[in-house]
Amino acid sequence: MDDVRKAAVASKEASYRLQSIPGNIRNKALEAIADMLSLRRRIIVSANEKDLAEANMSGLSQVLLKRLKYDDAKIDESLDSIWSLVKQEDVVGKVISRTELDAGLVLEKVTCPIGVIGVVFESRPEALVQISSLCIKSGNAVLLKGGSEAKNTNEALAAAINDAIVRIDERFTNAVQLLSTREEFQRLLQQDDKVDLIIPRGSNQLVRSIQNSTRIPVLGHAAGVCHTYVDNDADMDMAVRVCYDAKVQYPAVCNAMETLLVHEGIAGDILPKMAEAFSKAKVVLRGDAAVRRVIKADAVVDDDWSTEYNDLILSIKVVESIEEAIEHINTYGSHHTDAIITSDPSKAKLFQDQVDSASVMWNCSTRFADGYRYGLGAEVGISTNKTHARGPVGLEGLAIYKYRLNGSGHIVADYVGPNAKKYTHRKLR
Amino acid sequence: MDDVRKAAVASKEASYRLQSIPGNIRNKALEAIADMLSLRRRIIVSANEKDLAEANMSGLSQVLLKRLKYDDAKIDESLDSIWSLVKQEDVVGKVISRTELDAGLVLEKVTCPIGVIGVVFESRPEALVQISSLCIKSGNAVLLKGGSEAKNTNEALAAAINDAIVRIDERFTNAVQLLSTREEFQRLLQQDDKVDLIIPRGSNQLVRSIQNSTRIPVLGHAAGVCHTYVDNDADMDMAVRVCYDAKVQYPAVCNAMETLLVHEGIAGDILPKMAEAFSKAKVVLRGDAAVRRVIKADAVVDDDWSTEYNDLILSIKVVESIEEAIEHINTYGSHHTDAIITSDPSKAKLFQDQVDSASVMWNCSTRFADGYRYGLGAEVGISTNKTHARGPVGLEGLAIYKYRLNGSGHIVADYVGPNAKKYTHRKLR
Repeated sequence: MDDVRKAAVASKEASYRLQSIPGNIRNKALEAIADMLSLRRRIIVSANEKDLAEANMSGLSQVLLKRLKYDDAKIDESLDSIWSLVKQEDVVGKVISRTELDAGLVLEKVTCPIGVIGVVFESRPEALVQISSLCIKSGNAVLLKGGSEAKNTNEALAAAINDAIVRIDERFTNAVQLLSTREEFQRLLQQDDKVDLIIPRGSNQLVRSIQNSTRIPVLGHAAGVCHTYVDNDADMDMAVRVCYDAKVQYPAVCNAMETLLVHEGIAGDILPKMAEAFSKAKVVLRGDAAVRRVIKADAVVDDDWSTEYNDLILSIKVVESIEEAIEHINTYGSHHTDAIITSDPSKAKLFQDQVDSASVMWNCSTRFADGYRYGLGAEVGISTNKTHARGPVGLEGLAIYKYRLNGSGHIVADYVGPNAKKYTHRKLR
Repeated sequence: MDDVRKAAVASKEASYRLQSIPGNIRNKALEAIADMLSLRRRIIVSANEKDLAEANMSGLSQVLLKRLKYDDAKIDESLDSIWSLVKQEDVVGKVISRTELDAGLVLEKVTCPIGVIGVVFESRPEALVQISSLCIKSGNAVLLKGGSEAKNTNEALAAAINDAIVRIDERFTNAVQLLSTREEFQRLLQQDDKVDLIIPRGSNQLVRSIQNSTRIPVLGHAAGVCHTYVDNDADMDMAVRVCYDAKVQYPAVCNAMETLLVHEGIAGDILPKMAEAFSKAKVVLRGDAAVRRVIKADAVVDDDWSTEYNDLILSIKVVESIEEAIEHINTYGSHHTDAIITSDPSKAKLFQDQVDSASVMWNCSTRFADGYRYGLGAEVGISTNKTHARGPVGLEGLAIYKYRLNGSGHIVADYVGPNAKKYTHRKLR
């Protein structure tokens, strides 16, 4: 057995033990992590300074150096997030339903941890603390792979976390394990009998490459090509305000608008207003022929419709109908987040029914699609999957359920044949 | 575009339209299917007779011929199952939660169809009717591939279903499509941008081969290696009764017991009783050395522990403790269904917590793990997946959710910076 296989097996074994640890002990473990990070503040910051020095020497960009930095202020932020996680409702051990199948034979559907979560994240060391805490809170074992440039910081953090949780309860042994190389993570992706879910936190390229190289379910999104459709029944001032926010407020993120669709009935009126607003933020506009008859814009090419710019660039198309808008979004979009601006509730309903995206907005900005804004507490990620968890995913995305059937010697043979007993199927909850 | 791609694209387009069709119309479509099957009874039975004649000529076994048969009695069963499906609660359009993010900005998490379901099933033509009805009920489009020996029957059934539903609402066009060859289904497994879930209904080999050849999520189980652990605190008569039922009542199915684990403290007393009971049903016993010191049994080999016999064969092991039993089950089992017989509630809890299976039974037979017995209504399948849906899966396994955010011009920029508005995150439901 190689080291990665050994780690995966150890994680699986830990995950069985974790299923028995009640919520109050998992919360105590989180508090112990916070205490230990405080206690080892100097050790962690020194480890990070070593990483920063090495990264500086090797010529890492200022942007990446900033992400790599994990100083006292960042530690305080991590502590805050752990404390707020302690207060969140437990997602495991909840009885979803309780059904009497017959006298003395009771079926319970109860939430439980998924098992073993594999996580890969890029530079930011705070991600290690956050994702470990989420997994401990939800009773899952986790195998983490961080950026190699943050090696010393990650090792110091993982050691602090492990020392803290094992002191609370020995069953936490191996609940949090750190992999050190990309090659190790690649091998982890092959352990589909031991790892139950992969969560990649990084670029679209990383997510796509992982989706393409594992049979393990992957929770995430490989693209955020988000649209706003401005209907002919839209309030024009509202449309301009909302579209400006969706494109400009923070263009580098997955829920920013990349394509604007405008109904032909109002294109002549609204496109000049949009162009004026966007020009203030120096947004580069790309339009189809109908757009360019009204405003100045670069010619759009077919690839634009499916491109996530993550930048101050916007592609614009004039459509003949809401149906054409819906079809365009379902064809070129990434099923992440899309919005309609209209004063007609029936058109809003049609759009929200038929646009096949995790979040569908009516008269508000696509930028709201986010776990914090949705009030989910800690965010595990944003998913464009069609099964298990969709859209911004909170802690409940790390839970599943199992059935417990409790009897007193009940056998199936009594319920078949000529004198079969009847099931009661009485809902108890 | 080849035919399979075209069919997948048409299914996807149908799935968007289906999202708009309310529950009462979906129920009307089910009623129309039942009416049409009644109306075309003679056509369908003749088509089946043609299949039966050809299968007989080609030397199909009596068992397979029986499965292939779809006569008046089978049609009546199909009609009954459709009528009971009409009465089942709608799983789509349910508001899971409603949260006010701020005044006039309301987030709804609403259940919706998954989209496009690909189903492959073996000989039984009633599976076509059942799975199509489940998909119509839950608003999903479906692509079906049946056994080639049932070609004429399946075509007659699919035509009847399509004619019925399209007459109720044109939006059902292409909601149910039939693929004709295995090679076509193989190509369907590659359409991961159009097909959202695969449900294989057939042998373990079929399920495993599909899991290994697609990136689309697969709902099912590739094996049912189920255990019963008899603890030293078990009621011995109960243990014998329950184990006999779990092995003998219907050995050919996935939830039958394949391995019996017995605590060493009671092995000497209980094994002779078990052997006596099982001998009545001519069950072949295979045991480890400790078992064979007490009763007559064949020597077990390591492969036995992970073998699904689906037959009157049972492997037996003596264990030192409940912990060893749990470890054995988690190591060699298939995470499907496992049982403990004990009078000690704390051991039952430990077992039900730590055995990582979809169904964990206490003092009752593993054979109860089934959608009908669990009261789920129609059963989509039994899943050993760790995400989305686990254990016996009812209609709710064909639904997911989307977020709808309704505002009146709300923008994210108002909620950041020095004068940021605050989110209320008020639970409305």
